[in-house]
Amino acid sequence: MSGTAGIDGGNATYGKKPFKRSRSHFTDRVTADGRDGWPVEPGRYRLVVSKACPWASRALVSRRLLGLEGALSLAVADPIQDHRSWRFTLDPDDRDPVLGIRYLHEAYDARETDYPGGVSVPAVVEVPSGKLVTNDFQQITLDLATEWTALHREGAPDLYPPALREEIDEVAEDVYRDVNNGVYRCGFAHEQKTYEDACRTLFARLDALSERLANRRYLVGDQITEADIRLFTTLVRFDAVYHGHFKCNVRKIAEDPVLWAYVRDLYQTPGFGDTVDFDHIKRHYYQVHTGINPTGIVPLGPDLSGWLTPHHREQFGGRPFGEGTPPGPPPAAERVPAAGRP
Amino acid sequence: MSGTAGIDGGNATYGKKPFKRSRSHFTDRVTADGRDGWPVEPGRYRLVVSKACPWASRALVSRRLLGLEGALSLAVADPIQDHRSWRFTLDPDDRDPVLGIRYLHEAYDARETDYPGGVSVPAVVEVPSGKLVTNDFQQITLDLATEWTALHREGAPDLYPPALREEIDEVAEDVYRDVNNGVYRCGFAHEQKTYEDACRTLFARLDALSERLANRRYLVGDQITEADIRLFTTLVRFDAVYHGHFKCNVRKIAEDPVLWAYVRDLYQTPGFGDTVDFDHIKRHYYQVHTGINPTGIVPLGPDLSGWLTPHHREQFGGRPFGEGTPPGPPPAAERVPAAGRP
Repeated sequence: MSGTAGIDGGNATYGKKPFKRSRSHFTDRVTADGRDGWPVEPGRYRLVVSKACPWASRALVSRRLLGLEGALSLAVADPIQDHRSWRFTLDPDDRDPVLGIRYLHEAYDARETDYPGGVSVPAVVEVPSGKLVTNDFQQITLDLATEWTALHREGAPDLYPPALREEIDEVAEDVYRDVNNGVYRCGFAHEQKTYEDACRTLFARLDALSERLANRRYLVGDQITEADIRLFTTLVRFDAVYHGHFKCNVRKIAEDPVLWAYVRDLYQTPGFGDTVDFDHIKRHYYQVHTGINPTGIVPLGPDLSGWLTPHHREQFGGRPFGEGTPPGPPPAAERVPAAGRP
Repeated sequence: MSGTAGIDGGNATYGKKPFKRSRSHFTDRVTADGRDGWPVEPGRYRLVVSKACPWASRALVSRRLLGLEGALSLAVADPIQDHRSWRFTLDPDDRDPVLGIRYLHEAYDARETDYPGGVSVPAVVEVPSGKLVTNDFQQITLDLATEWTALHREGAPDLYPPALREEIDEVAEDVYRDVNNGVYRCGFAHEQKTYEDACRTLFARLDALSERLANRRYLVGDQITEADIRLFTTLVRFDAVYHGHFKCNVRKIAEDPVLWAYVRDLYQTPGFGDTVDFDHIKRHYYQVHTGINPTGIVPLGPDLSGWLTPHHREQFGGRPFGEGTPPGPPPAAERVPAAGRP
């Protein structure tokens, strides 16, 4: 996941200080004009994700909504890292079939010898050179939305419309600080007060978001934007892992009628729920963070059967894809095993 | 709590095998005829509890419903044990003011020199000798109901009516195995399969209980009995500790409309909710079991504000106290700090 490998890589690796997420080290951008040396080009890059990771899952959703599956191929890491971090043990011979590597750190090493930092997803890797281009999780989705436009599918939505950017950035900043990263600040706290401060801030923000969404379908404007994608990837994991494992347990999302309807609405929208793998999510959090869950036992719950129940959010109108259309089904090779979905 | 001290006493003390609750070692009974040498007598015995403990809390509820507060005095242990187990660190000078001891194990030692087993609550201690009489959590409440009758308050209910005993025993056996002890089997499992078996059994039993209670107010007959007391002390703790800490997270009790109404009905009945101390409950589980929760951080949740909301269970009729009446308020010294209650 994004941040130092240590943070998500095992129990011995997050310290006694309040949790602080590292800035991405590799911040080159893949752009239409190729100004950083990495021009947008079909088939040239590979997106490496863990389906467990909320930061990587933003890119999974954007790639689906924009129809970039053919242009930007996908490598899925094992949800369980070992001491060398993310690995391709789900693939034949434990190697990513396109990059030919066993560990994501090999792409980091190809880019910068003896890079001392953490290995994180999402990562964009150039296929011919095998070099990491960027692990800048905050920028990757914005570039997919605004720089990769030549390769978007017909009918792709505008996920970061110029007229809404200021408001999207503002909402996303609050969501990042208090929710996306807030759940980690709860879960990785080592002091009661640090935890309580983070947890109160988290639920105050969730309450504010619930109020904002009580009478409008999406966070900004009347269509799905980057802001919704960023909130979705945390909310969809909330009851499954953050509620218990990270002690974010004032209430479940399923107990907040507004947020529960909002997240189900997105989950049921093509491009969102079809990227969600609850098995990867639960095994990653509960088995990797042995400092929080020493037994490594993965809970049976929560019951996932509610995800497809009616959400009634259509009553607020909105045009999910703006002027665009929904994406088709995911490529066969990327279908997630059923979990609350047919 | 009941069982070996080790089980509830710290992380190093429950083993790798499936969790098995020890039988009580001291099984003398305090009876009307005094046949074990311990006749019922006002002021002669002291009930030692932890308000964190579901087994001890059965006795707390029975004592309140039967109006035995004046006849059987109460010692409340600190919810956080140390390596010598339950201690009276809530009292002035860290000593129980009546027994004069600092640790419950001193009463065990007074009874049996070098007793090698665990120290558990509930415990009945004879005040003059300072000796433990019994820690038999399965028998203590039955004896309060049937042997202490001469000291019951006017209007005390019959919690174990002869005509209903067979059915009460049958229900209580299922509840004990799958629910009361079932949550511990989930929480103290060290193998995925052991956990999953216990968790599936637990929720299958909760589903069956929910069905049983869908159209009747109480578990057996039309009045509160021992069976309800035994189910209550687990259900009232469920969302606060078992759901997250013990991974009993298929759903919250608050998500089962029948069980949630049932447990609130009892909680709002004099003698039940006024014995419940969520602060003791949460601190005990989250701070003592460092093998499950290494940081010792106590979650902020769940929100307790729902406990006093209307339950509408009166529609099923029933006579809560049978031919009897509700108990008055608890003695001033035993009032629990507000937690979901005014």
